[in-house]
Amino acid sequence: MRKTQVAVLGATGMIGQRFVEMLEDHPTFEIEGLYASERSEGKRLSDVLKVRDHEFKQETLDIKIKNADPKDIAKRVRVAFVGLPSDIAGPTETELAANGVAVFTNAGAHRMDPDTPILIPEVNQDHLMSVKDQSTFSNGGFIVTNANCSSTGVAVPLYPINEEFVLKEVFISTYQALSGAGYPGVPSLDAVGNVIPYIGGEEEKMESELAKILGIYQNKKFIPAKFRTYANCARVPVVDGHLESLILRTEKEASVEDIIRVLENFRGEPQRRKLPSAPFQPIIVRREENRPQPATDVFAGGTGRSKGMAVTVGRVRKKDDCIKLFLLSHNTLRGGAGGSMLNAELAQSKGLL
Amino acid sequence: MRKTQVAVLGATGMIGQRFVEMLEDHPTFEIEGLYASERSEGKRLSDVLKVRDHEFKQETLDIKIKNADPKDIAKRVRVAFVGLPSDIAGPTETELAANGVAVFTNAGAHRMDPDTPILIPEVNQDHLMSVKDQSTFSNGGFIVTNANCSSTGVAVPLYPINEEFVLKEVFISTYQALSGAGYPGVPSLDAVGNVIPYIGGEEEKMESELAKILGIYQNKKFIPAKFRTYANCARVPVVDGHLESLILRTEKEASVEDIIRVLENFRGEPQRRKLPSAPFQPIIVRREENRPQPATDVFAGGTGRSKGMAVTVGRVRKKDDCIKLFLLSHNTLRGGAGGSMLNAELAQSKGLL
Amino acid sequence: MRKTQVAVLGATGMIGQRFVEMLEDHPTFEIEGLYASERSEGKRLSDVLKVRDHEFKQETLDIKIKNADPKDIAKRVRVAFVGLPSDIAGPTETELAANGVAVFTNAGAHRMDPDTPILIPEVNQDHLMSVKDQSTFSNGGFIVTNANCSSTGVAVPLYPINEEFVLKEVFISTYQALSGAGYPGVPSLDAVGNVIPYIGGEEEKMESELAKILGIYQNKKFIPAKFRTYANCARVPVVDGHLESLILRTEKEASVEDIIRVLENFRGEPQRRKLPSAPFQPIIVRREENRPQPATDVFAGGTGRSKGMAVTVGRVRKKDDCIKLFLLSHNTLRGGAGGSMLNAELAQSKGLL
Amino acid sequence: MRKTQVAVLGATGMIGQRFVEMLEDHPTFEIEGLYASERSEGKRLSDVLKVRDHEFKQETLDIKIKNADPKDIAKRVRVAFVGLPSDIAGPTETELAANGVAVFTNAGAHRMDPDTPILIPEVNQDHLMSVKDQSTFSNGGFIVTNANCSSTGVAVPLYPINEEFVLKEVFISTYQALSGAGYPGVPSLDAVGNVIPYIGGEEEKMESELAKILGIYQNKKFIPAKFRTYANCARVPVVDGHLESLILRTEKEASVEDIIRVLENFRGEPQRRKLPSAPFQPIIVRREENRPQPATDVFAGGTGRSKGMAVTVGRVRKKDDCIKLFLLSHNTLRGGAGGSMLNAELAQSKGLL
Repeated sequence: MRKTQVAVLGATGMIGQRFVEMLEDHPTFEIEGLYASERSEGKRLSDVLKVRDHEFKQETLDIKIKNADPKDIAKRVRVAFVGLPSDIAGPTETELAANGVAVFTNAGAHRMDPDTPILIPEVNQDHLMSVKDQSTFSNGGFIVTNANCSSTGVAVPLYPINEEFVLKEVFISTYQALSGAGYPGVPSLDAVGNVIPYIGGEEEKMESELAKILGIYQNKKFIPAKFRTYANCARVPVVDGHLESLILRTEKEASVEDIIRVLENFRGEPQRRKLPSAPFQPIIVRREENRPQPATDVFAGGTGRSKGMAVTVGRVRKKDDCIKLFLLSHNTLRGGAGGSMLNAELAQSKGLL
Repeated sequence: MRKTQVAVLGATGMIGQRFVEMLEDHPTFEIEGLYASERSEGKRLSDVLKVRDHEFKQETLDIKIKNADPKDIAKRVRVAFVGLPSDIAGPTETELAANGVAVFTNAGAHRMDPDTPILIPEVNQDHLMSVKDQSTFSNGGFIVTNANCSSTGVAVPLYPINEEFVLKEVFISTYQALSGAGYPGVPSLDAVGNVIPYIGGEEEKMESELAKILGIYQNKKFIPAKFRTYANCARVPVVDGHLESLILRTEKEASVEDIIRVLENFRGEPQRRKLPSAPFQPIIVRREENRPQPATDVFAGGTGRSKGMAVTVGRVRKKDDCIKLFLLSHNTLRGGAGGSMLNAELAQSKGLL
Repeated sequence: MRKTQVAVLGATGMIGQRFVEMLEDHPTFEIEGLYASERSEGKRLSDVLKVRDHEFKQETLDIKIKNADPKDIAKRVRVAFVGLPSDIAGPTETELAANGVAVFTNAGAHRMDPDTPILIPEVNQDHLMSVKDQSTFSNGGFIVTNANCSSTGVAVPLYPINEEFVLKEVFISTYQALSGAGYPGVPSLDAVGNVIPYIGGEEEKMESELAKILGIYQNKKFIPAKFRTYANCARVPVVDGHLESLILRTEKEASVEDIIRVLENFRGEPQRRKLPSAPFQPIIVRREENRPQPATDVFAGGTGRSKGMAVTVGRVRKKDDCIKLFLLSHNTLRGGAGGSMLNAELAQSKGLL
Repeated sequence: MRKTQVAVLGATGMIGQRFVEMLEDHPTFEIEGLYASERSEGKRLSDVLKVRDHEFKQETLDIKIKNADPKDIAKRVRVAFVGLPSDIAGPTETELAANGVAVFTNAGAHRMDPDTPILIPEVNQDHLMSVKDQSTFSNGGFIVTNANCSSTGVAVPLYPINEEFVLKEVFISTYQALSGAGYPGVPSLDAVGNVIPYIGGEEEKMESELAKILGIYQNKKFIPAKFRTYANCARVPVVDGHLESLILRTEKEASVEDIIRVLENFRGEPQRRKLPSAPFQPIIVRREENRPQPATDVFAGGTGRSKGMAVTVGRVRKKDDCIKLFLLSHNTLRGGAGGSMLNAELAQSKGLL
């Protein structure tokens, strides 16, 4: 089978390069080109390298960054992975879709659009069908977004809990990694030995995205889930890996053992379809008293393409009618490029590419 | 007036040395001796120095650590400040009180005893009277505990909110500093670039202490406050200063402006009595979008003895019926030695010493 | 006596604000205005605060930043303290001096000019006289630079060693703090858990500045000192305080005791003249086996205006014919604004203002 | 071929577990047992896991730690890898060798023994022959040590420089990682935002070991190399990877290009023999202006068993007659367990096992 040609937009950034990492030797996708702004045109990937923990192949490092307008890119590829900043991403994605490209984006610009899914294949794989209602779908173009990095980590374990016990409310406090702010991102003088209890727009995103993700798509409309989310977001001096504190209430009574059971047994569409980037188990539950930690669990999920694709849950406890737990997910893999990669693999598997 | 002679127990530890810091030039207390285990006997304070950010006087640095049993200490002082580990502290404090010493302790051993107050003078100054019901009071001995470091930071702002709007429930996630674990405490390999979502016993302490602190003492019994507390505690790579995320519900409706008003206007007994270590304002509300931070707010409260004695609250917001905020307090000053110092000053001011 | 009116240029930056910190309640200088680029005009100091560890007075925090061209500033003040980036600082300083202002600058632009001193009052107070040979001196204008932050820490202890034992060569490796790169400076993703073995131009500056500073000014020319300097510079995840490793050779034999003696006994012109910002002792020698450390020694020097103005030396050892030691100095106080403050105080004391 | 049975001593520590990591699927060695003190007997490897960045196989994680005295171990294995603390290691190794075991140790106890090599196969592979002069060799037992972690990183690039240009003197300052102090090791309160300019015994080790390693073994005696080493050692808040600053002089003149050429072209005995853990290239030279960094270069060397086995050199410059550079090596792989693994592979390849 000939591999599908794909473009990576925003290839000088952390998320763009995570796309590149996951596309090396991908079984069904092939990099046509890496794109960025004019300023980086002609540089090699090695000149602008941000990802530190993956050993890229020399031929990948030698790829020269291109600059092109969306119409030109549309002539060359079927699929675009977008790691651009949200303000630039919005119009670029619209134009790509208008010109027949299937867009899988990490940017937030279109997440709350009425016909655009925030797709997490383990959670709401049926939302993908909403792209058929996008006006550009007839010529092959459509937009699929992945969730915000901190929403993703929460949505995956909340889904099976909601399915079985029906969520009422969730209180979230985040311990988010520095890589979530991109590069150069947070000044080191603000980060070293400090915590910053503010990430612009993050709490609002979590509160609205989670309802949409766990809601349903019916009669060409997204109907948000009913439970309420309350989030307080903070940045901690950790390189990769968002840790999140959750306290939640469910309609039906659930014991600690119940919660652990539904989390551990949960398998989703990527596992059933054996998508190339799917972790074997989407949720890993740790029973040690001091896990998950960024240092020990950030790469959970497997090796190669599924490295960092699992969400790790730990310290599941109950007090009164509340379940308390911590979870961890890799913010630029599972919560970033990896999310969109899985989305594209699902779309391909369902015959949309 | 002749100053009251005091002993500091556990003078080789961080909390013990914070006591010493606050006792330098204290207007009404005077150090009789610094005490620690046999192992440190004869060393000078300068040989075992843990506090890094206070410039001790040379004569203080030259004080030699003593070792003595509680009975001997009791012969020499009216007051003992205790910074010992909880397991050793418990029996030592009992013996000191039995021998007529007024004990002000940072250790948790007696906090939940039925006749021992967890005293925060701004919050529950009347709880101090419970010491009169301690069996040793007749010969002058009694025990007063300060709250756990993470409970203190929460209790101070919760008190005026509870007074005016009646708390229903509080969801807390903590970002606690390394100094809270003492020295050597957390291994650096676990701390650098990491977050540890576990502090042994901390969540249980917060959940039980807060109810006792904000409750009432009546008919020789502590009756806990009715609101419920749910806590998730984590350690972050910060040297000093516990940041805490709070989401709370009240019986009476409160707007953001209401909350800010009661917090800013709040003054307690230490302010009314102008106790030597009292901050001018117990709660400082920041309106910047990214405060409080350990790096910028840990020493809020004033200079000298009231440095680090205020609690800083920021990012007060409302969603649905919940108030969301962050707060910060210095864990070894306000939440440790400073708390007990203020307790002793209150006791003295009330004629109990 | 009426205080001398001074302007601070670059008041939105770290160094500019260290000037402001040292000028609060200064006995002989008074802030006329804080200046910065047009972009910050009208903001209060509190809106752009970078210094975290000094509690500014409210009236200082309320000062509004002004923007003005050098000619206008020259009409208002006798003295300008400059904390601008080097490229802007160069021409600004030239114009200020041309218009009769005595300029004390932290910027490097004029450091190697043939008639401009790199002044460290403890080391080369007589170099100040070179300003009389500047063409603008006749109308009262002149420029005095302080040394680079990492050069200062080295120059102070090297001076008395050179005086008594005659230096042959010095091998330096630096462990420099993040604040040396200004704000936003080093991205946190490069800083957390990492060391960056490169600081642009720093090694060259150290190698040339040290020779000029320890040289002599004779017949209107700076004659550099003869010893050779070899520097390797690196950035470490520390907020404030440059640690430096020195291995050195002298012409005359010196024992460890000899070195400690000359360092401890050393007093310079600021100490003799009791300048307001002078530390009581310019060099502090620690005998502990693990000092100096940024965490414990960065503020050595005293309290108030002389806080952070001493250089701390430790681990003085000998191997073969080499002396090995570590030293620490505060890079934005002693090695930055504090250096220029001391320079201005010396100039005033010598009747040049 | 049947694999050689090996024991790992000190399997609860960081170095011990690095041995285990490298022994998983090793082509010629097979783990007979993991040994530690009585305190850990019966625990699984997973219960005491220190290595965070390697995904162990489940069957490895399930191995139960054993406790046994050296004589018993000697009955079961031909080879012992030792990651014990130096004081326990010394007598244990002596007894193992006396009972016929080939000991490859990371401990320093026997490094300076007159008949024991400090072996780095790329540097002094012929020193291995000194084991034939050990009294226990006749019954098959002998001891081979690897160099101290900071010595190894220096010795590898110094060797080809010394071979071609003859070293005169080397001035070293180290930026050493926290993992070098083991676990729990450095308290986090001393590490976060700080540098500690002291590592007990480290400077002396470097100064003596380097001379032995680069010297010759002749007439049953080690004759140390003639060049002199001066070291200043410091600990920085980095998890893994020792960065070192080197300034060196050679007898024969060498340009920057000369140095880069000999470093890049260098291949040693492990490369010629294609030993299983040998990096393809023992020294990697980076030409970027800000490399090597722990964050980017610590795992240089390849994938799998040769991951972290190369030394990275960067910023090669010349001033006067001195060469200045920085180098980085993984302190628990190349500078620890990996070093001894390579030693054992060399011994096996030479028919000594």
